[in-house]
Amino acid sequence: MTDRPNVLWIMADQLRFDYLSCYGHPHLHTPNIDALAARGVRFANTYVQSPVCGPSRMSAYTGRYARSHGSTWNGMPLRVGEPTLGDHLREAGARAVLVGKTHMVADRDGMAWLGIDPASEIGVRVSQCGFEPFERDDGLHPDSPRQQWSAYDDYLVRHGFTSDNPWGDFANSGRDEDRTLMSAWLLRNSRLKANVPEKHSETAYMTNRAMDFMQDAMGRDDPWMCHLSYIKPHWPYIVPAPYHDMYGPEHIIDPVRSDAEKDTDHPLLGAYRNARVSRSFARDHVREHVIPAYMGLIKQLDDNLGRLFAWMDKKGLSDNTIIAFTSDHGDYMGDHWLGEKDFYHEQAVKVPLIIADPRPQADGTRGKVSRALVEMIDLAPTFMNALGCTAKPHVIEGRDLTPVLHGTDGFYRRYAISEHDYSSSEMARALNVPQQDAHSVMIFDGRWKYIHCEGFDPILFDLETDPDEVKDVGRSDAPEHEAVRIRMKHALFTWALRHHSRITATPEVLADQSIAAETGILIGFWDEEEYQATTGKPFGSLVPAGRPQR
Amino acid sequence: MTDRPNVLWIMADQLRFDYLSCYGHPHLHTPNIDALAARGVRFANTYVQSPVCGPSRMSAYTGRYARSHGSTWNGMPLRVGEPTLGDHLREAGARAVLVGKTHMVADRDGMAWLGIDPASEIGVRVSQCGFEPFERDDGLHPDSPRQQWSAYDDYLVRHGFTSDNPWGDFANSGRDEDRTLMSAWLLRNSRLKANVPEKHSETAYMTNRAMDFMQDAMGRDDPWMCHLSYIKPHWPYIVPAPYHDMYGPEHIIDPVRSDAEKDTDHPLLGAYRNARVSRSFARDHVREHVIPAYMGLIKQLDDNLGRLFAWMDKKGLSDNTIIAFTSDHGDYMGDHWLGEKDFYHEQAVKVPLIIADPRPQADGTRGKVSRALVEMIDLAPTFMNALGCTAKPHVIEGRDLTPVLHGTDGFYRRYAISEHDYSSSEMARALNVPQQDAHSVMIFDGRWKYIHCEGFDPILFDLETDPDEVKDVGRSDAPEHEAVRIRMKHALFTWALRHHSRITATPEVLADQSIAAETGILIGFWDEEEYQATTGKPFGSLVPAGRPQR
Repeated sequence: MTDRPNVLWIMADQLRFDYLSCYGHPHLHTPNIDALAARGVRFANTYVQSPVCGPSRMSAYTGRYARSHGSTWNGMPLRVGEPTLGDHLREAGARAVLVGKTHMVADRDGMAWLGIDPASEIGVRVSQCGFEPFERDDGLHPDSPRQQWSAYDDYLVRHGFTSDNPWGDFANSGRDEDRTLMSAWLLRNSRLKANVPEKHSETAYMTNRAMDFMQDAMGRDDPWMCHLSYIKPHWPYIVPAPYHDMYGPEHIIDPVRSDAEKDTDHPLLGAYRNARVSRSFARDHVREHVIPAYMGLIKQLDDNLGRLFAWMDKKGLSDNTIIAFTSDHGDYMGDHWLGEKDFYHEQAVKVPLIIADPRPQADGTRGKVSRALVEMIDLAPTFMNALGCTAKPHVIEGRDLTPVLHGTDGFYRRYAISEHDYSSSEMARALNVPQQDAHSVMIFDGRWKYIHCEGFDPILFDLETDPDEVKDVGRSDAPEHEAVRIRMKHALFTWALRHHSRITATPEVLADQSIAAETGILIGFWDEEEYQATTGKPFGSLVPAGRPQR
Repeated sequence: MTDRPNVLWIMADQLRFDYLSCYGHPHLHTPNIDALAARGVRFANTYVQSPVCGPSRMSAYTGRYARSHGSTWNGMPLRVGEPTLGDHLREAGARAVLVGKTHMVADRDGMAWLGIDPASEIGVRVSQCGFEPFERDDGLHPDSPRQQWSAYDDYLVRHGFTSDNPWGDFANSGRDEDRTLMSAWLLRNSRLKANVPEKHSETAYMTNRAMDFMQDAMGRDDPWMCHLSYIKPHWPYIVPAPYHDMYGPEHIIDPVRSDAEKDTDHPLLGAYRNARVSRSFARDHVREHVIPAYMGLIKQLDDNLGRLFAWMDKKGLSDNTIIAFTSDHGDYMGDHWLGEKDFYHEQAVKVPLIIADPRPQADGTRGKVSRALVEMIDLAPTFMNALGCTAKPHVIEGRDLTPVLHGTDGFYRRYAISEHDYSSSEMARALNVPQQDAHSVMIFDGRWKYIHCEGFDPILFDLETDPDEVKDVGRSDAPEHEAVRIRMKHALFTWALRHHSRITATPEVLADQSIAAETGILIGFWDEEEYQATTGKPFGSLVPAGRPQR
């Protein structure tokens, strides 16, 4: 155990907060993740900054809101020059290593403008969201002219799984009774077992790659933060044996939904409910096919994490590694008659978060549950703190969670924020909302969830009296609701008007501003006497730099 | 006359909108600027995006709000990768050339992170706000260890004005009856004549340099936008003979101020009034010393512009050059008991703007006055249009003024916005406001000027009933005022929540999002039949890229 531990930051993709036994799932037992919670802090109220992969991850990797980093939707490049967690850690002498998914798209136009070769060391860093890519795999390799062949595809071929698309044909397909290949892109094939043995699946492969990295890092001195970023349980929903038939209809928890919300007259909520993917997941037979596979994928992940943690114990790494486990957003799975994620009910915007800190300062909090309101952007400064890197106040918008881990005061957050840019989505087309206006923002204070929907009435849920969020009081006449709406809108206004782009205002730059008189720039002084009375120095006492020697 | 004219964009520094005869000054005659207005459009309602040099200029040079580009205060570097007008024009094959001031501070940290050599071609461009620096001179060369020696200093030395600080000792000092050197940093020396002949003054020098550039450009084919950016009438307030004694107390217009506003109980306004520079300019003898020099500097500028325009006529340049004349902000000069700029009364935030377009399409608007609500960021897309460069909707926030110049429909702006970051100012210290919260925003609809002051009550002026802005109704009980405040705050909220950082959302990136099915990423389809019914294509019809050939 050293003063400066390493960090293993594990992220699952599309994992709901409530599909782990330590978060209360009655049928899905995840003993290895539960054991992590028993030796760390389990955060009960963690919210992502956008309920969709790309922007949520760009927030996680920069410690900044989607509004700030500007990559507001999947596929929107993170602009060159937007500082990342990896950039900050590198300044402090630590490595930021990627094993798995980031959803990062490189800003090739920006690099071209600035003359940065994408193949150069800096170009790779800028393209990989600040990470050193030990293994980059965003986990979607569909049949399409744009398919990206990955190292995992090579791995499958090496192990005898040969095709034009091994990812698609083995890891993400099944076979029916006739041995016909059935793609997991289609939901009705979710119950088949994946056409690959578990030990060669994506989850097992990426677990092995994390071990490869840590084994390699043991030969080096520099501290590291390793982002082990799993693709699953994200769709395509299919899982290898034996996980494919571990769960059945009897293990499916009832959907969280009401008839009343099905018939909402809120135009934006209505458009979400009418989206194709929502209509699909609103069908019981879809839920009954998909949820067992989703649960199997999570159970498989838990088993792989058990394997990983045991290996780390054996290698002596556990005592010196902070382990965080979280997800980039949830999955509606038909709750609220919705599919996918993209909105702000708990099932989509709330994620599991467990942080186990092996340092003695954390001994008092092991196994505790924190009900603090946490944002995903709080992880970056927390990891920076652990690795001896000060969070720059002009750049990092998240707040260091170390006080929570160490049982001390100092962490507080009154509101959690999440944003969604639906300009490229079906809802914008259905409602004919211009791309500039197709956005919404959630602000949540732990009880009231206020959702500003640009161009529409707000949506408001009271999670105290309506924990299932089935009763929108965004247009209620009750004076209490009216007062809450005014307060939450004002808080959102204050947040929106904050500095989100002032990233060159370093403490040095700000300090420099306070000493204008020492620069010799004298504004509004009448005479020498007034100057001296104000500054305490005689006028003309500054020494000019003089003419440069040439 | 070609289809693609050049653009000469002239900017004065700290020139109030009302200190030109074409804008109504009764004693200050500016026939050359008036003549420009007679052959162009004079805009009566142009607002800068921040009432202070640095952020106002960064907005002008990027076509984006201060909130967007993030350089919210003087000396805050414009981040690497923030696209400028010069970058856009260069893409379209036009040059963006600087002669004079930009107030740009290079983002050296950002360049270091991205491996950009400040001395390289791209490094210079990034350091110079996207301009090709034919002559860069920010016009302040104080006696201080940080003094910057400029080409103008060299010029003065070459002409026999030798000292350690020629800018300070000649261009910005006078001599008293004893021939003692008296610095114009002190206001009481403003009435002295500058210690340099007019033909070697900063204004004359920069005019000559613009001619040098245009002469040089005549030998080349590429179209250009030249930013001729004068330092004056910005302080130090001193002007060479004969301009130093052209104006006296009889030419000073009465201050715009009331006793009531002197005793405001609005904490932020009160702090502005108590700032040292405001207390200085609130004194009549300061006004009486400074304003004649300020007027002389403007008169001198007008004469130099006359010289420039005559030279352009002679060289045949006038027929093919759009000429714009404006300023980066105003100067309170004691109005409202305030000094300097930094707030939102008309004297500070409103600027003159004249655009003379020689193209025949503009023949119908010559000599006309436009009352349209204009923002300084509208100039960038206007110049881009003239130079054949399409404004990128995901980057440029200003709106093209060409329809106004050509007398057609298509320009409309309901609100003008201006922002101020006073975190480094005396007011923040006096009020003990944290740096993060020391900001305000103005939103103006042509009648109502609503000023959101973070942490304080709003300020509201009704310019219809109170054109002098001496009656703040920000806390008035009148139902009309209450309704206006709600409307204006909501408009500001909508503006604040807009995308300001989404600069990688090119039309191509946005279009790419609409064709997810063609990428092979299929979300929420139950089976082949549903896929085909939805997409019109058989499932599995996409051709995989296949394994790369190695």
